[in-house]
Amino acid sequence: MANFPKFVEFREEGPREGFQIEKRIYPLADRAALIDALSETGVKRIQVGSFVSARNVPTMADTAELFAAIRRKPGIAYTGLWLNAQGFARAQATPGVELDPRLLFYASNRFSMQNNNLPALEMRERQRAWLDLYLAHGLELDAAYVMAAFGCNMEGDIPLERVMDDFRWIVDLCREKSVPLPNLYLADTMGWANPDSMKRAISRLREIAPEARVGLHLHDTRGLGIANVHAALEMGVDLFDSSVAGLGGCPFAGHGDSTAAGNVCTEDAVFLCHELGIETGIDLDALIAAARLAERILGRPLMGRVMHSGGLTRRSGLPVS
Amino acid sequence: MANFPKFVEFREEGPREGFQIEKRIYPLADRAALIDALSETGVKRIQVGSFVSARNVPTMADTAELFAAIRRKPGIAYTGLWLNAQGFARAQATPGVELDPRLLFYASNRFSMQNNNLPALEMRERQRAWLDLYLAHGLELDAAYVMAAFGCNMEGDIPLERVMDDFRWIVDLCREKSVPLPNLYLADTMGWANPDSMKRAISRLREIAPEARVGLHLHDTRGLGIANVHAALEMGVDLFDSSVAGLGGCPFAGHGDSTAAGNVCTEDAVFLCHELGIETGIDLDALIAAARLAERILGRPLMGRVMHSGGLTRRSGLPVS
Repeated sequence: MANFPKFVEFREEGPREGFQIEKRIYPLADRAALIDALSETGVKRIQVGSFVSARNVPTMADTAELFAAIRRKPGIAYTGLWLNAQGFARAQATPGVELDPRLLFYASNRFSMQNNNLPALEMRERQRAWLDLYLAHGLELDAAYVMAAFGCNMEGDIPLERVMDDFRWIVDLCREKSVPLPNLYLADTMGWANPDSMKRAISRLREIAPEARVGLHLHDTRGLGIANVHAALEMGVDLFDSSVAGLGGCPFAGHGDSTAAGNVCTEDAVFLCHELGIETGIDLDALIAAARLAERILGRPLMGRVMHSGGLTRRSGLPVS
Repeated sequence: MANFPKFVEFREEGPREGFQIEKRIYPLADRAALIDALSETGVKRIQVGSFVSARNVPTMADTAELFAAIRRKPGIAYTGLWLNAQGFARAQATPGVELDPRLLFYASNRFSMQNNNLPALEMRERQRAWLDLYLAHGLELDAAYVMAAFGCNMEGDIPLERVMDDFRWIVDLCREKSVPLPNLYLADTMGWANPDSMKRAISRLREIAPEARVGLHLHDTRGLGIANVHAALEMGVDLFDSSVAGLGGCPFAGHGDSTAAGNVCTEDAVFLCHELGIETGIDLDALIAAARLAERILGRPLMGRVMHSGGLTRRSGLPVS
């Protein structure tokens, strides 16, 4: 029944997702220490921070300095997010940034208006210019994300075919430009997915782009994050964005839509994979140590579960750590 | 593929699981208010408290008073837990207690020694006397639990056939006494289950007792609780013990085995069911209100997710609550 992959890749987004939403600016040395701890876990890609407006997002103002402060480990891609031309230029100018060009699509018009002050279809059209820019710089497209792919707090249910329309557009664009398809990401930006809708979306996406690698960017807003990961694993998905300790939100901060919720928790998802016999290349104990460091840095309880309970590695009649 | 039940019954254990483990004794009026709020949700069975030693568990000393304080609603079974003859006598003597006789089995010998100071096989033999006592009082057996059915922090992995051996013993005992089989509960006391082991155990239990109703008592120690619920739903399981707000532990209290973790969270599991089109008879918004009340009473963030984010009931192009 289940078509589990042999190996799953987790791309760590905790350092960006986690600190970006904070009101406080945490010491650079602490943020570098967390990234250094993550470098020791076996994770192969770590999103260090954003190259966005320092005025709008002061917590991300020193991303270039953070890149200079981390202890880089060979074989790990240290990435940074940009959303406009200035940000891309800063990422290019910062030593040590692995440039991983992405296209961003919005399945929700209202969400696109809120984030970009542009209708979703205009935002989509802009992605063509982004691709041209990346190609002009000799860069290969890494990923295309369709956001709010399972539903939107502002717009409600999102019809699956609207999401697939974006993916068809991406397939056509790549064909037109004669570039290979990037990783195609379904992003459950606001935590609307459930295991059923997850399987339906993956299945439909595979019909549209059978040759593409499917990725998932999940937020665990309503507690179904790990169940959704499991559903995706059953469909053979082997690529997940995730955040150590579930960083990226603080669901305890309040009630209702204004409450940010973090990405699906890396170590809980890794634990699930290992329990199912799926390899990740990640040392769970080292990852738990990184999650606990994140908790110490932020100074409040974080959402991860395995980081608090410990895993089940030494399991045959022995106390587990 | 999935063999979802049409209707799932949730038995609410939050009031007992939640307050039993606390160091503080919370005001009786607050605990009664939580139970009264739960009575308005559509839940049909609420475990109010324990009839256990007031010296060992001071937080449960006033269970009889709590029964007197709640605003009983017709059609709801208000239950209490007992573990020895004195406790059973107190439950019998307390007005308004729905007696729901249970047999308790331990798949882990070390866990049985810790909890009962008795080897698991002797504990099992004692269940025969409990059944005789219940029958002598004209009571029908409600449930038989096999605890640590998926693994044990003290003993490690638990072979599935050892768990099934307990269930075979129960089937034989009920046949011998000519009583109907009770609900057969797999209890993941320490959070060792994963969706695969969950499906294997349910499948094997159905072979041994095809006519029995299977129940699950899950602790969300390692973050797989809702994924395990989903796996069980796919197998047609329609009976779950659960705790509002995930009460029953505080994984944030520390790190490692000593960290208690709560039951699987009622409203998150109810949300999952509703998203899958499975009925529960529960008003999710009322349940979220009860969960938020629990958070106000305990005065610290609780583990439930939907209680913080809100559900998705008003979803068609409308802001959700």
